[in-house]
Amino acid sequence: MNSNNRAFELHAKYQGKITIALRDEGELDREKLSAYYTPGVGAVSQAIADDPTKLPEYTWTNNLVAVISDGSAVLGLGNIGPEGAMPVMEGKALLFKRFAGIDSVPIVLNVHSTEEIIATVQAIAPSFGAINLEDIAAPQCFEIEERLAESLPIPVMHDDQHGTATVTLAGLINACKLTGRELGNCKIALVGAGAAGVAIAKLLHKYSGATIIAVDSKGILSRGRSDLNESKQRLLEFTNPENISGSLEDAVREADIFIGVSSPDLLTQDMVRTMAKDPIIFALANPNPEILPDDAKAAGAAVVATGRSDFPNQVNNALAFPGIFRGALDNRVRQITDEHKIAAAETIASLVANPSADEIIPSVFDERLVPAIAKVIR
Amino acid sequence: MNSNNRAFELHAKYQGKITIALRDEGELDREKLSAYYTPGVGAVSQAIADDPTKLPEYTWTNNLVAVISDGSAVLGLGNIGPEGAMPVMEGKALLFKRFAGIDSVPIVLNVHSTEEIIATVQAIAPSFGAINLEDIAAPQCFEIEERLAESLPIPVMHDDQHGTATVTLAGLINACKLTGRELGNCKIALVGAGAAGVAIAKLLHKYSGATIIAVDSKGILSRGRSDLNESKQRLLEFTNPENISGSLEDAVREADIFIGVSSPDLLTQDMVRTMAKDPIIFALANPNPEILPDDAKAAGAAVVATGRSDFPNQVNNALAFPGIFRGALDNRVRQITDEHKIAAAETIASLVANPSADEIIPSVFDERLVPAIAKVIR
Repeated sequence: MNSNNRAFELHAKYQGKITIALRDEGELDREKLSAYYTPGVGAVSQAIADDPTKLPEYTWTNNLVAVISDGSAVLGLGNIGPEGAMPVMEGKALLFKRFAGIDSVPIVLNVHSTEEIIATVQAIAPSFGAINLEDIAAPQCFEIEERLAESLPIPVMHDDQHGTATVTLAGLINACKLTGRELGNCKIALVGAGAAGVAIAKLLHKYSGATIIAVDSKGILSRGRSDLNESKQRLLEFTNPENISGSLEDAVREADIFIGVSSPDLLTQDMVRTMAKDPIIFALANPNPEILPDDAKAAGAAVVATGRSDFPNQVNNALAFPGIFRGALDNRVRQITDEHKIAAAETIASLVANPSADEIIPSVFDERLVPAIAKVIR
Repeated sequence: MNSNNRAFELHAKYQGKITIALRDEGELDREKLSAYYTPGVGAVSQAIADDPTKLPEYTWTNNLVAVISDGSAVLGLGNIGPEGAMPVMEGKALLFKRFAGIDSVPIVLNVHSTEEIIATVQAIAPSFGAINLEDIAAPQCFEIEERLAESLPIPVMHDDQHGTATVTLAGLINACKLTGRELGNCKIALVGAGAAGVAIAKLLHKYSGATIIAVDSKGILSRGRSDLNESKQRLLEFTNPENISGSLEDAVREADIFIGVSSPDLLTQDMVRTMAKDPIIFALANPNPEILPDDAKAAGAAVVATGRSDFPNQVNNALAFPGIFRGALDNRVRQITDEHKIAAAETIASLVANPSADEIIPSVFDERLVPAIAKVIR
């Protein structure tokens, strides 16, 4: 059975993936109902009203993440709307529970403007302990995340940006170790300047100061271009220092590292051959990478990562977000910072004791991951 | 231990009342994750995007109610805000699960204007199969519920209004049977013209055409008053046909039925003595009723109901809402109508085979309740 048929089979069998259960598994008799609901609950409510910081002590919010999407950039499917987004968001809730024991609730939004999304999330925010934004299209995802993180007293993270960036950095740390490189001395060609691309560029710059050439569908991002949105313009503050212009081909020439978060089959073997010796290829387009691992290796790549689970070195957000939110909730962190993401990336990288071409990234099933990451998010 | 201490003890021990569990209790290995999440989930998402009516087939929305409050009228506590409201809403979710197996998610809102509440609920509505509005202050609760019910493709019910009205009607059906009355021939004094009072008046009128005199804190609602908000003015379309004015004392004189959804100790024994013979007293103010049952009986009441679990005949919303939402979800009902509420009330009343002064209403633990009500909500 292929994975699509299997997906329909499982989704129809259980009608979804998550359910509500009661924390108190004992019998709920009249006495307990009087304590959990009226009249007893009134005193608990009044205590929280008097001091809202007590909310996590007495309610499920202490372990609760909202997974919020407007369905405008879902997986490789694009703008499929809130209903279409629901199975993915419910899947994310399943991952939160499976990997980190975190309760999460999928919330899909029937509004799509920046202002409406921000207003809606602010309005429902007291219901949750943290917010995971998901599959919201660039460039509006940047302003939405930034303004929500500033205005809300709970952590807000757009996982398409920072989960991907964190795991990419983790993989690069070990790929550099393996190929004898200093990340800060590398030239990096980064293709795709959407949510993930922008966040990867920012985090790599912050961590290493590497030379980054960013490329979108029109070519290299350079100061001569008049077609760049604000988030792409901001990338020029620290990418492409020599202000070269040109195509993807020009960007990858002599590059130590290729990172693709773009479209299938963009990178040819000929291009790989123009890169520096023993190049590092992160071909993360999903489900079809910018170049297949075997083709990249045949053209000289020393190490290849993709977004797929059927190849070695899967750059999978699920390596990062469960531990990051686990730590943020447990340690009552109000904002998830670049320092947190870097610490998470270093932790993920450190779990591979001896990196090899087939193992620069740990498995999502590695049980050390979540507790180790959670410890550094504080 | 009193119920307040017990409430703090239980709420602190479990840190809330509900949690997320996975529907598929088998091991979640790589193969299953590929079906529940990427890449398999993409095909399920696309199928729903192509036909959003498939949402309930493949997601938890088919069994999911949002319990939404802005915290503006919580229990007897008043406007305690969203954080303070959370334990009550989580308690409601516990009742939904315990009594009807329904998944529900408490959503507390940080906005309070009619327009903002409506916009927020509309924005998040695709995430749910039905919406239970809760503890939103009158009179804005009326417009909020009406406009949401009209604009959304899923059922919306403000339980403070209709849960209370449904169970009140159920109790009155049996109280009339017991005292040999026709509800349609009764004179009813109804004290309190907030969310519950307005809904009770409307439902009793629709069901029976009884003569209703409504009273608020300023006295009898009459056409001479200039201080009535829109919802109270609308009550005058079918209450107080002789347009009398006066106090509570004037309203209860010769009345067959007293219904209080107002304040403690409003009804004196002297007033009860001015009512018709064998009067019916529903003193529903919580936690302290308008008159204590023993005092009412000593003054001649034939049957007394309150909102409390430690007296007989508890008018408890939990008798109605679990079955109403169970039916609405199972039968894909788009709007909960007056006919539904009347059918639910008749069903609740019918479960007491031989009404007596101490039993006009079944127990919330009666296992016949939810399936019997669900069957008539279609």
